[in-house]
Amino acid sequence: MKILIVNGPNMNLLGKREIQIYGNVSFEEYLTQLKLSFPSITIEYFQSNVEGELINTLQQTTANAIILNAAGYTHTSVALRDCIAGIDTPVVEVHMSNLAAREAFRHESLISPVCVGVISGFGLNSYALAIKSFIEK
Amino acid sequence: MKILIVNGPNMNLLGKREIQIYGNVSFEEYLTQLKLSFPSITIEYFQSNVEGELINTLQQTTANAIILNAAGYTHTSVALRDCIAGIDTPVVEVHMSNLAAREAFRHESLISPVCVGVISGFGLNSYALAIKSFIEK
Amino acid sequence: MKILIVNGPNMNLLGKREIQIYGNVSFEEYLTQLKLSFPSITIEYFQSNVEGELINTLQQTTANAIILNAAGYTHTSVALRDCIAGIDTPVVEVHMSNLAAREAFRHESLISPVCVGVISGFGLNSYALAIKSFIEK
Amino acid sequence: MKILIVNGPNMNLLGKREIQIYGNVSFEEYLTQLKLSFPSITIEYFQSNVEGELINTLQQTTANAIILNAAGYTHTSVALRDCIAGIDTPVVEVHMSNLAAREAFRHESLISPVCVGVISGFGLNSYALAIKSFIEK
Amino acid sequence: MKILIVNGPNMNLLGKREIQIYGNVSFEEYLTQLKLSFPSITIEYFQSNVEGELINTLQQTTANAIILNAAGYTHTSVALRDCIAGIDTPVVEVHMSNLAAREAFRHESLISPVCVGVISGFGLNSYALAIKSFIEK
Amino acid sequence: MKILIVNGPNMNLLGKREIQIYGNVSFEEYLTQLKLSFPSITIEYFQSNVEGELINTLQQTTANAIILNAAGYTHTSVALRDCIAGIDTPVVEVHMSNLAAREAFRHESLISPVCVGVISGFGLNSYALAIKSFIEK
Amino acid sequence: MKILIVNGPNMNLLGKREIQIYGNVSFEEYLTQLKLSFPSITIEYFQSNVEGELINTLQQTTANAIILNAAGYTHTSVALRDCIAGIDTPVVEVHMSNLAAREAFRHESLISPVCVGVISGFGLNSYALAIKSFIEK
Amino acid sequence: MKILIVNGPNMNLLGKREIQIYGNVSFEEYLTQLKLSFPSITIEYFQSNVEGELINTLQQTTANAIILNAAGYTHTSVALRDCIAGIDTPVVEVHMSNLAAREAFRHESLISPVCVGVISGFGLNSYALAIKSFIEK
Amino acid sequence: MKILIVNGPNMNLLGKREIQIYGNVSFEEYLTQLKLSFPSITIEYFQSNVEGELINTLQQTTANAIILNAAGYTHTSVALRDCIAGIDTPVVEVHMSNLAAREAFRHESLISPVCVGVISGFGLNSYALAIKSFIEK
Amino acid sequence: MKILIVNGPNMNLLGKREIQIYGNVSFEEYLTQLKLSFPSITIEYFQSNVEGELINTLQQTTANAIILNAAGYTHTSVALRDCIAGIDTPVVEVHMSNLAAREAFRHESLISPVCVGVISGFGLNSYALAIKSFIEK
Amino acid sequence: MKILIVNGPNMNLLGKREIQIYGNVSFEEYLTQLKLSFPSITIEYFQSNVEGELINTLQQTTANAIILNAAGYTHTSVALRDCIAGIDTPVVEVHMSNLAAREAFRHESLISPVCVGVISGFGLNSYALAIKSFIEK
Amino acid sequence: MKILIVNGPNMNLLGKREIQIYGNVSFEEYLTQLKLSFPSITIEYFQSNVEGELINTLQQTTANAIILNAAGYTHTSVALRDCIAGIDTPVVEVHMSNLAAREAFRHESLISPVCVGVISGFGLNSYALAIKSFIEK
Repeated sequence: MKILIVNGPNMNLLGKREIQIYGNVSFEEYLTQLKLSFPSITIEYFQSNVEGELINTLQQTTANAIILNAAGYTHTSVALRDCIAGIDTPVVEVHMSNLAAREAFRHESLISPVCVGVISGFGLNSYALAIKSFIEK
Repeated sequence: MKILIVNGPNMNLLGKREIQIYGNVSFEEYLTQLKLSFPSITIEYFQSNVEGELINTLQQTTANAIILNAAGYTHTSVALRDCIAGIDTPVVEVHMSNLAAREAFRHESLISPVCVGVISGFGLNSYALAIKSFIEK
Repeated sequence: MKILIVNGPNMNLLGKREIQIYGNVSFEEYLTQLKLSFPSITIEYFQSNVEGELINTLQQTTANAIILNAAGYTHTSVALRDCIAGIDTPVVEVHMSNLAAREAFRHESLISPVCVGVISGFGLNSYALAIKSFIEK
Repeated sequence: MKILIVNGPNMNLLGKREIQIYGNVSFEEYLTQLKLSFPSITIEYFQSNVEGELINTLQQTTANAIILNAAGYTHTSVALRDCIAGIDTPVVEVHMSNLAAREAFRHESLISPVCVGVISGFGLNSYALAIKSFIEK
Repeated sequence: MKILIVNGPNMNLLGKREIQIYGNVSFEEYLTQLKLSFPSITIEYFQSNVEGELINTLQQTTANAIILNAAGYTHTSVALRDCIAGIDTPVVEVHMSNLAAREAFRHESLISPVCVGVISGFGLNSYALAIKSFIEK
Repeated sequence: MKILIVNGPNMNLLGKREIQIYGNVSFEEYLTQLKLSFPSITIEYFQSNVEGELINTLQQTTANAIILNAAGYTHTSVALRDCIAGIDTPVVEVHMSNLAAREAFRHESLISPVCVGVISGFGLNSYALAIKSFIEK
Repeated sequence: MKILIVNGPNMNLLGKREIQIYGNVSFEEYLTQLKLSFPSITIEYFQSNVEGELINTLQQTTANAIILNAAGYTHTSVALRDCIAGIDTPVVEVHMSNLAAREAFRHESLISPVCVGVISGFGLNSYALAIKSFIEK
Repeated sequence: MKILIVNGPNMNLLGKREIQIYGNVSFEEYLTQLKLSFPSITIEYFQSNVEGELINTLQQTTANAIILNAAGYTHTSVALRDCIAGIDTPVVEVHMSNLAAREAFRHESLISPVCVGVISGFGLNSYALAIKSFIEK
Repeated sequence: MKILIVNGPNMNLLGKREIQIYGNVSFEEYLTQLKLSFPSITIEYFQSNVEGELINTLQQTTANAIILNAAGYTHTSVALRDCIAGIDTPVVEVHMSNLAAREAFRHESLISPVCVGVISGFGLNSYALAIKSFIEK
Repeated sequence: MKILIVNGPNMNLLGKREIQIYGNVSFEEYLTQLKLSFPSITIEYFQSNVEGELINTLQQTTANAIILNAAGYTHTSVALRDCIAGIDTPVVEVHMSNLAAREAFRHESLISPVCVGVISGFGLNSYALAIKSFIEK
Repeated sequence: MKILIVNGPNMNLLGKREIQIYGNVSFEEYLTQLKLSFPSITIEYFQSNVEGELINTLQQTTANAIILNAAGYTHTSVALRDCIAGIDTPVVEVHMSNLAAREAFRHESLISPVCVGVISGFGLNSYALAIKSFIEK
Repeated sequence: MKILIVNGPNMNLLGKREIQIYGNVSFEEYLTQLKLSFPSITIEYFQSNVEGELINTLQQTTANAIILNAAGYTHTSVALRDCIAGIDTPVVEVHMSNLAAREAFRHESLISPVCVGVISGFGLNSYALAIKSFIEK
C-alpha cells in the first residue's frame, strides 16, 4: 500500500516560522517519524505553493490513497476540487488546526464534498489518523 | 483512562432503519467490538433524543474524554455548545457521514469551534479514530 | 387503520389561553369529535413540549400514518427532520394557522421536505383534512 | 355552492407529457371524476398560461370559493397576490407536488399570505381536499 | 400635447372592491374629472391585467408622454423595464399609495431607473401631479 | 397656509459647484421664483449640513406642511425618521435626481415610510410639485 | 428538419429603436437572410410580448428544435422554465448581448438549467450558431 | 407577590466551572441572598437543561411575574417564544453578560419581542434589577 | 456620586407629542421625581438632537457614571460608539421601549458592545433601574 | 487567421477519466479533427493546471482570437479576468457542460463580463461553434 | 501651497485617553512637528465631533488639498461623501490604524470612492505620507 | 536597508497595454527612477503571474521590508494571506488605482488585515510612499 501526502502553500514554513504557535518540528522531521510508525506502508510526500502543481501531482500519482492538506487553497480552489472529483484515488482532507475556531473565511471548504472524509484539529497527529483511516478501510 | 461516547437524536435507529444506507449493524453491536479493540480503555455510552439530557450527561461525566456525535443538534444547539465550552473534559466531534457532501443546513456546526477537533465521513470507524486521537495525545 | 396525531410545544394551551384568537375548544374536546367522525379509524394522540419526546414517540409508534403539528419545532429541529426521514411511517405536516401570513421566521419549515405533504391554515379542520388524505390514499 | 378551480401555466400538459412522473390522467379526466364525487357542488374550471388572464378570471368569477394552483406564477406574481387580496371570494392554494422538497426557488410562495390556507403534496387529491375544506367551513 | 395613462393589474377593481381603503371612486370617474382639469391636453387611458398587453401599448402609443402605474408588475417585470428603456416617449412612474410604507417586496421598483421620475403616495392626485410635471417641462 | 422647505447637507452648493450637472441656479434664486408662483402661500426656507439642526427645525416649525430634501441623511438617519414620525406636521419627501438610477446605497430611504409621499427625479420642479400636492389636498 | 425561433418581449423593436446600439436591421430582415444560409432547414418564427403566448407556442410546436431568446422573461419566469422542462423538444437559449456584462439582475437565468446550452454575446449571429449546434448534433 | 426565576441550560454550572470568569458564587447561594433582600416577595426557582421542561414550568406557574434567563435557548427556541406569547404572566428577559459584546449568533434573541423588557450585562445583579422592575410596576 | 443622564434626538418631544403612546410626562418632570428618589446622588442631565454634541458631552463629563438613551443614533453612530470606547466613565444603555419588538432596523445597536449593560423596555423606569445598577456596583 | 485554444485545469484528464460521462475522446484527438474541419485556420493549443501559466500564455500569444475554457478558474480568478481585459485579442468563453445546471458555485463566471461572448453546454462542439463565431465576425 | 487637515469625531481624545494604545502624543503636538518638517507648506487644522461642521469646513476651505481622517463618520456618512464629491479640492483619506484588521463594520468606507487615494495603518505618520502624496503630485 | 517590491499578475503589461489609462511608462523604467530617488536603499524587484511563485519569493527574501501589489490575487488568495502572516518581514500593501472606486469584487482585500498598512490610489507614486513609510519607521 502506497500513500501520498500532499501539503499546500506555506506548509514548508512549518517548524521554521511562528514556532511559538506551531512548534519547532518541521514536516520533514515528522515525516521520518511517521514512516517509522507505519513500516508496512510506502509514504510519498509532496509540497508546493503553486495550485497547479498540486493538481499535477494529484493527477499523476500512482498511490492507493491521498492525504491532502490544501491549506489556503482549501477555501478558494474550484480547480483542486474538480481534480479530486476527476481522479479515482480516494482523498482524505486533513488540517492541523480546528478551522471552525478560526476566521469565518476558513469555515467553508470547497474540497470537503469530494473527499472521503475530514480530520481536523489534531495537529500533526491528523496525518497519522488519516493513515489509520485508510488502513482500517 | 475513561472515554464517554455520546450519541444524539435518532442514532438509536442505526442498524434498524435505512439499512441499505447505514448497514445493519446497531451502535450497541459496534460498541462491543470497539471495547474489544481498546481493552485498556473504559468506554461508557449514552444516547438520547432529548437535547437537555445530552447536556446533563456531558456536565456530569467523570470520563477523561468525550466523543460526541450530536447528530441533528449539531447545527441548532447553542445550549450544547455552551455546555462543551463550560466543562473541562475535552470533546472530539464525530460524524459517520461527510456532512459537507449533504444538505446546506448540515454544513455549519455550532459545536465545532469549542471542540478539540472534528472527524467526519468514516462511517462507524470515525469513533475508533477519535479514541486513537485521545490515546496519542 | 391506525393514525397517530402528534402535537408539539404549547398545543396543550389550546382552548385555555388566547381564547379570543384560537377559540375555547381544547384539542382533547376536538379529538373526541374527530374520533366520532372517523369511526373506522383508530386515532391515537400524543402531545409534548419536549423535542426529544416527540422524536421518541415518532420512532416507536405502530400506527400506519402520522399527523404532525410540530408547532415551534417546525422551524428549528433538524433532529425531528432526521427522525421523519428515518422512519417508514408516512407523515403529513399540519398547521392550524396560515404560517405564510405570520412572522418571517415561521415561513421556513425544516420538516416539510421529508413529509408527504402539508395542510396549513384551516384551523382544527386541518387535522380532519389530513386524515382524509390518508384514507383516499 | 359554486367552486371555481383555476390552474396556471403548463397544467394543460398534465397527462400528456412527463407521464412517467405525473401519470397519464389529464386534468379534464380528473375533473369529470371530481364532479361525480361532489354532486351537490357546481365546479367550474379555467386554465391559462397567461398571468393576466388568470387575474381577469379571478376578478370576474361569481363562484363562492376558488381553488388555485398558480404553478410557476406562485413564486413571481405580485399581481396575482394583489388580485387575491382585492377580491372577496376566499382562495385555497393547492399544489400537486410537495414544493418544499423541490428547488429552492419554489419554497417561497408570494400568494400564500393572502390565501385562506395551503394544501400541498397530495397529487390530484389536493383538489378534493380543498373542496372538502370549503364544505366543512 | 397627448398624454397616455397606463394602469397595470387590478387597477380595474378601484372603487369596486376594498372601498373602505381606496374610496368608491373608480378610475374612469376620476379620469373624467382629470380631463376637465386639463382641457388643453388629450388624455388617453389604457388598463390591462396582462403584462404583454401593457408592453404592446407602450410600444405603439403616439402620445408625447406616458404616466404608468405598473401596480404588481412594478416589482417583477424586467420586460416592462426593457420596453420603457427601448422607447423614446418619456415615462413618469406613479403610485397611489406610499410603497415604502408597505411590504418589503414592494420597496424595489424595477422600472424606476428607466423612468424620468417617481411620484408616490398622493392617492389619485399622483396622476394630476404627473401631468403637471410634463406641462412644466 | 405656511409651507417650510428644508434642505439637507450640501444643498447649499447648488448652482456653485458641479454646474455642468445641476445647472447654475442656486436654491435661493429658485426660491424667489417659487414664491412668485405661489403668492398665496408663505414659504419658509432652512438649510443645514448638521443632522441635529434639521431635526430641531422640523420639531419647532409652525408651518402647516413640510417639504424635505434630506439629501445624504435620507439613507442613514434613523433620528430624522423618528422626528418626522413624532411631529404632527405632514412631510413630503423630494429629491431632484431619480435616486433609483444612482448608486445602490441611495435606493433605500429611511424616511419614506413616515412621509406622506415621495416626489423624485424632476429637478428643482420637484419642489413645485410638492407644494401643489399640499394645495390639492 | 424544422427549427422554431422564438423571441420574447421587445424583440419586435429591433431595428426600429435604439438603432445606434442594435443597428437598423429588423429581425424579419435577418430571418430572410438566415433562411437563405440554411436552405435545407425549415425555420419558423414567433415573437410575442405576452409570457403566456410564448408558453403556448412552445407547447404546441411540431418543430424538432427550438431557439429561444426569452429577453426580459429570462430572469423572472418560472412558468417558462417549467414549460421547457415539460416538453420534449430541445431548447437552446440565445442572447444577442453578453448578459454577464450588463446589470446584476440580468446575470441569473432561470431557464438555463433546463436548456441544452447557452450562446450569448454574438449579436444576431447567436441565432446562426444555435442552428449549427443543432445540425452538428 | 410571587416571582418565578427560571434559568436555562448550563446555568447549573455557575460557580463550579469557569470560576475565573463567572466567579465562585453558585446561583443557589445568590438566591439565598436575593430572598433576604426582598423579604416581602416569594421567590421560586427552577433550572433545567431541557427546553420542554422550561416550557412546562412557564405554562404551569402560579407566580405573578417571571424572570427568565433562557441562556443558549435564547437564540434558537421558537417554542419558548410561543410559550411566553401564550401565557398571561409577564416575563422579563435577563442575561448576566452583555450579549452584544459576544459572538454574532448571540446578538439575536428570539424571545425579546414577546417579553416585557430586557436587562443584560449586570452579572447576577441583573436578577435583582428585574425584581425591582416588577415592584415598581 | 454623580451620574450624567444623556438623551439623544427627539427625546425632547417626550410628553408633548404622541401622548397617547408615551404618556404626558415630559422628561424634565420625570427628572425632578428621579432626583427625589435618589437624594444622595447628583444627577446631571443633557439632551441634544446633534450627534456631535452628545459626543462632546460624553467626552467632557466629570460624572462617575453615564446613562445613555441614544435614541435614533443607537443604530447608526460609529462615532458615538468610538466615544464610549474611548472614555473611562462607564455607560449603561437604556431604552424606554422594547426595541426587539419594533422595526428590524432597531434590532441592532452599535453601542451595546461598548456599554456595561443594557436595560430596555421599562418606560421611564428604565432610567431608575440604570441608576440602581450603578449603586449596587 | 490564427486562433489559440486555451484549456484550464483538469482538461488534460479528458478522455482518460470519467469516461462514462465525458466520453473516451481526448482533447488532442478532437483537436486533430477540428484542424481538418477548418483547414484555412491555424489552430494553436495550450493546456495548463497553473493559473499563472494560463495568464502568461494569453499575454504572449500572437493569435488573432482566443477560445478559453478556464474550467475551475472561471469562478475564482480575478487575475485571469484582468488579463483578458488588459490584452487586445478578443476572447470567447466556452464550456463543454451547461454550468447553469450544475452546482451553485459554478453559476457565476468572473471572466464573462470581459469576454466577447459565451458558448456553454454543447460538449466538444462548443469549441467548433466558437471558431465559427470568429469566422462570421 | 496650503493643506487642510481635518479630523473627525473623538480624534481630540488622542494622547489623553487610551494612552497605552495610541501613545501620549496629542494631535496638536504632532501638528507642531509636522509643520516643522514641511516649512514650505501652510498647514491648517480643524477637528470636530459634529458631522455637519466637518462638511461646512470642507465646503469653505481655500486650501489646495485636504487630508481627512473622518474617524467614525467614515462608515456612516453619505453626506460627507456627497460633500467631497461636490467640491473641487482633492481629498486624501487617512487612518492611523489598519481598518481592515479591525471590526467588520469598519471595513467599508463610504468616502473612499470619491477620494484621490487612501493611506491607512501608519499611525500619525499616515498624515505625513499624505502630505508627500500631494507634494509629489 | 533592503526593500523587496513584489508585483502580482498582469503588472508586466504596464506601459505596454491600455496605455491611454495607465500611461506608457513600464514598471522597469519607473524602477530605475525609484532607485535613483532612494540611493541609500537596496531595492529588489520581482514580478510573476503565478500565485505560488509570489509566495515562494515572499518566503525566501532576505529583505528588511516588502512592498506588495498583489493585483488580482488581492481578493482571492488565502494562501498569500497565510504567507504574509507566517513570515516576519513587514509587508505594506500598495495599489496604483483607488480600489474602492472600482467593481464591488475589488473592495475586499484578503491580505490587508495581515499587512502593516495600505496605500492605494496614487498611481506609481504609491510605491515611493510605501518606501517612505518604511524609512520613517
